[in-house]
Amino acid sequence: MNILYDERLDGPLPKVDPELALSRLREALPGMTLLHRDEDRRPFECDGLSVYRVMPMLVALPETVDQVVTLMQTCHELGLPVVTRGAGTGLSGGALPLEQGVLLVMSRFDRILELDADARIARVQPGVRNLAISEAAAPHGLYFAPDPSSQIACSIGGNVAENAGGVHCLKYGLTVHNVMALEVVTIEGERITIGSEAFDAPGFDLLALFNGSEGMLGVITEVTVKLLPRPQSAKVIMASFDDLEKAGRAVGDIIAAGIVPGGLEMMDNLAIRAAEDFIHAGYPVDAEAILLCELDGVEADVADDCQRVREVLAQAGATQITLARDDAERARFWAGRKNAFPAVGRLSPDYYCMDGTIPRRELPRVLKGIAELSDESGLRVANVFHAGDGNLHPLILFDANRDGELALAERVGGRILELCVEVGGTITGEHGVGREKINQMCTQFEADEITLFHAVKAAFDPHTLLNPGKNIPTLARCAEYGAMHVHNNQLPHPELPRF
Amino acid sequence: MNILYDERLDGPLPKVDPELALSRLREALPGMTLLHRDEDRRPFECDGLSVYRVMPMLVALPETVDQVVTLMQTCHELGLPVVTRGAGTGLSGGALPLEQGVLLVMSRFDRILELDADARIARVQPGVRNLAISEAAAPHGLYFAPDPSSQIACSIGGNVAENAGGVHCLKYGLTVHNVMALEVVTIEGERITIGSEAFDAPGFDLLALFNGSEGMLGVITEVTVKLLPRPQSAKVIMASFDDLEKAGRAVGDIIAAGIVPGGLEMMDNLAIRAAEDFIHAGYPVDAEAILLCELDGVEADVADDCQRVREVLAQAGATQITLARDDAERARFWAGRKNAFPAVGRLSPDYYCMDGTIPRRELPRVLKGIAELSDESGLRVANVFHAGDGNLHPLILFDANRDGELALAERVGGRILELCVEVGGTITGEHGVGREKINQMCTQFEADEITLFHAVKAAFDPHTLLNPGKNIPTLARCAEYGAMHVHNNQLPHPELPRF
Repeated sequence: MNILYDERLDGPLPKVDPELALSRLREALPGMTLLHRDEDRRPFECDGLSVYRVMPMLVALPETVDQVVTLMQTCHELGLPVVTRGAGTGLSGGALPLEQGVLLVMSRFDRILELDADARIARVQPGVRNLAISEAAAPHGLYFAPDPSSQIACSIGGNVAENAGGVHCLKYGLTVHNVMALEVVTIEGERITIGSEAFDAPGFDLLALFNGSEGMLGVITEVTVKLLPRPQSAKVIMASFDDLEKAGRAVGDIIAAGIVPGGLEMMDNLAIRAAEDFIHAGYPVDAEAILLCELDGVEADVADDCQRVREVLAQAGATQITLARDDAERARFWAGRKNAFPAVGRLSPDYYCMDGTIPRRELPRVLKGIAELSDESGLRVANVFHAGDGNLHPLILFDANRDGELALAERVGGRILELCVEVGGTITGEHGVGREKINQMCTQFEADEITLFHAVKAAFDPHTLLNPGKNIPTLARCAEYGAMHVHNNQLPHPELPRF
Repeated sequence: MNILYDERLDGPLPKVDPELALSRLREALPGMTLLHRDEDRRPFECDGLSVYRVMPMLVALPETVDQVVTLMQTCHELGLPVVTRGAGTGLSGGALPLEQGVLLVMSRFDRILELDADARIARVQPGVRNLAISEAAAPHGLYFAPDPSSQIACSIGGNVAENAGGVHCLKYGLTVHNVMALEVVTIEGERITIGSEAFDAPGFDLLALFNGSEGMLGVITEVTVKLLPRPQSAKVIMASFDDLEKAGRAVGDIIAAGIVPGGLEMMDNLAIRAAEDFIHAGYPVDAEAILLCELDGVEADVADDCQRVREVLAQAGATQITLARDDAERARFWAGRKNAFPAVGRLSPDYYCMDGTIPRRELPRVLKGIAELSDESGLRVANVFHAGDGNLHPLILFDANRDGELALAERVGGRILELCVEVGGTITGEHGVGREKINQMCTQFEADEITLFHAVKAAFDPHTLLNPGKNIPTLARCAEYGAMHVHNNQLPHPELPRF
C-alpha cells in the first residue's frame, strides 16, 4: 500500500532455494509442523496491518524451546532469514513475512508456567494472550497492567517485541516497565536469560533493549511479568469542550496539578459522533472534544482526586462535567472509546491510523496543525488520543478506490508524524515501526544514530537474518528519503504537490 | 585491596607516551584545564571506594560540550583511554582512573538549563548534584525521586552511569525510570540525543542501555529528568521483631497485601545497636530486627495504608509497632537508618559493604545463609537492607591490620554475592559493578552473555577506550575466575580453606 516504500532500499536479501530449505529443516526438525503449501501459508500473509501482504517461503510452528534452538541453528547455517510472529495483531507490519524467509509462529507456546501471587509475578510462554495473564491472576486480586486494545487476542511475546502500551500506561507503564525477565534464543541458537526477579541487574540493560526490538535481536521463548494488585476503586469523569485546543490544554493542567490518572483519553467531534452512532455511549455529539479521565486507587484517594479533576476541568473551560454514576455507565463511556476505530471505519471506505507521540504541552499546537493539514488536503481526520501520555491516534479517512487518495492519505500521515518530531516527539507511541514507518525513522534520527542502531543490531545478529527490512532503515533508504527530514520541511519528491 | 583481582586479566592497555598525550591535548584544547602535576592529580586517585587508588596520567576538566567533543576526538586519534568521573562518590570503583589514561572530570557542568514545572521535567548538566535538582524544583512542589544516600554530593551524570537507587526506589523507581533523555558524546566525538520528552521512542532503547552503563558507552553531557509532585503526606511505622527471618517474611507479607510503601527498610540487631549508640534514634536495642515502613501519598490513603500495614505486621509476629508521632520523630527514625554505615564503622577498624539483590521471597533464606557465613568465618556481619526491593547491604566487619582478615572478608563477601545469584538474584543493587565486582560478573553470567555485553560495548566503542577494565569482565578473567561459579560451589583456589 505504502507507495513511498521501495524495498530495493533494504539491500539484497540472501536467496536460499526453497526446496533446499524445506528439506534441510525437515531433516533437522522431523517432529515440527512446517507449512509449505499455498493454502497453508496463506493465513500468515499479513499481520494486523493487512494492507501489506507477503507470502512466506515456509511457516514453522515449533512447540518446544529445543525446536526453536535447532530451527535457529539451521537457519543460521543456511543463511535463511527468520521473521517471528505472535498472534499477528501488530499494527505496523512488524510480523510481515519474507518471500525468502521462514515465518516462525510462536502461537503454540501458550502455557502459563508459574504464577506466584506473593511475589506478584507470572512466568509465561510467549504465545500466552495478554488478557489470559490477567484472567489467571484475577483470583488473587492481581492483573497484568499493559492493556493494548487488542488484549483479548494479542500475545505477550508480541507485546514485548513491540513494547505495547494501552489506555492505562500513563500510570502503570509500558510493557518494558512490567517485564522482569526474558528467556531468548539467539540467531545462533544460544539460549540465554535476560533480567531476573531482582530489582536491578548488573551489566548493560539488555532487558530494556529487547522490549520494543521488534524481533530483530532474538526469539523470545519465555517472559516473566510483574502482576499488580487490582485498584480498590475506579471512577471515570467525562468532560465536554467547545474547543479542541482547550481540551488539549486541560490535559496538561490535570497532570500539572499533580494528579496521575489511570487513563486520560481524548476524542474530537468526528470521533465522538462516530462512536456515539455506533455504541450509544452517551457522548455529547455537539461537543468539539471530550476528555475521559479515569481515577483509580484507594476509595478515599479516588474521591479526593475526582474533586480536584473537576475543579481543574471547570477552570480549563469544560462546558459539561459528568461523573459516571456506576460501573455500568463507566463501562459504557469506555466502550465508546475502545470502539472508536471501528466506529470511524463506518464513516469512510478506508482509514489510515497514525501513532505519533508528543510532549503533552504541545497538544494544542499539534491539534491545530492536524486540523490545518486536514483542511489543506481535503481529507477528514478523526482524532482519538491517549492524551495523558501524549500518544496521538489521528485516523485519516479516505477512499482507496478514488485515484490518488491513498497516496494523499499517506502523505498527510507522513506530515503528521513530521509535526510530532518537530515538536520534540516521536513517530510511534505503541504500534512500533515495523515496515510501516521505516521511512519515517529517517525523519526521526540522524545518520549517526541509525549507525548506532545497526551496530547494536549487529551485536546480536551480525548477518541480519532476524526480521530484516523492519524497524531500523538502511542508510541507503535514509539517503533516498533524507530530503523528508523535517528541518528541510520538504517532501522527498519535490515534483509532487505538497498534498 | 581486592586480593582476588588480577589486572593482567583485563588484557594489555594501549600505552601512549604521557608527554605526547599532554602536548597533543594542550594543542587541541588550549583553553581547557588539564592537570598533570602529581599534587594536582592526587585528589582524583580514587572515588568513593577509596581502597583502590590509581594515579591518572592526566586529569581534564572541560567546561563546554565542544571541549568534550574535541577531547574525545583527540583521545580517539591517540588511542588514549578515557575514564569519566562525576562527583566521585561511587562505591564500586567505577571512576577509578587509569595510569595510562585521561580522567575526564565533569564537575564544571553544573548548571540547571531548564525547569518546566508544568511539563514536570528538568534539563540539567551532568555535574548538577542530585539534591540540587530537588531543591530547584521545591518551589513548584516537585522533586527528583531517586535518592541515593550520597544525594547531597553525588551528581546526576554519575547517577545515570550507575543507575542509582535509594530508599524510595521501590515505589518511585531507579534512575532509569526517572530519566527521559540524554545528550551524549561518543568516543568518536559525535554528539547525539537519546530518548525524548515523549513517552516512548522508536528504535532500540538506547536510553535504558546508557543507564547503568558505567561510562563504557559514551560521555553524558546533558540529562533530562522527570520531576514528581511531593507526596501530600508521609508517615513512618517502626516494627520490632525477636527473629530476623520473621522480619524478612513480614516484608514479603506487606508487598503481598498490595501495599507499595515509599520505603521499606530493615536493620538487624548489630546495625540497630550501632545506629542507636551513634544517633539516639529511639530504636529498640534488644530487638533482633526492625522494619521501617514509610507510607506516602494523599492523607486518607496514607491513613488507610498505615492501618493495613499495622495489621500485617501484627500478624507476622512483630513484638512492637510504633507510628512516628510527628515529623521530628519520623526524621529521627530515618536518621538512624541513613547513618547506619558510619555507625557500624565505629564498631570495627574496617568494614566491607556488600550490595546484592534478591527476590523478596528469598529474604529469610539469604538472611539465614549470611548468619551461617558469619559464624563459620568468625567475622561479624551487620545487615542493613532496602528490604522492599530485596537490595541487601551486609556490612562485613574486619580489621585490615590482622593478617589475612582482609582476604577473609573479601571471601565472605564473595560467598554472600554467590548466595544472591544462587537464589535468583544479582551481585549489585545500586552500587554498580565497577572494578570492585568485576570478578563476580563471571559468577552472574555465562560466557554467551558476557560475549553479548562485549558486542554491545563494541557497537559504541570498538577500541574499548571508554573505562576499560570495569563493569564487563574479559573472557580471560572469567576463564580464570570461572571455577567460582556457584554451581560448582567452590572457590577458585581450592588450596585455600573455605574461609
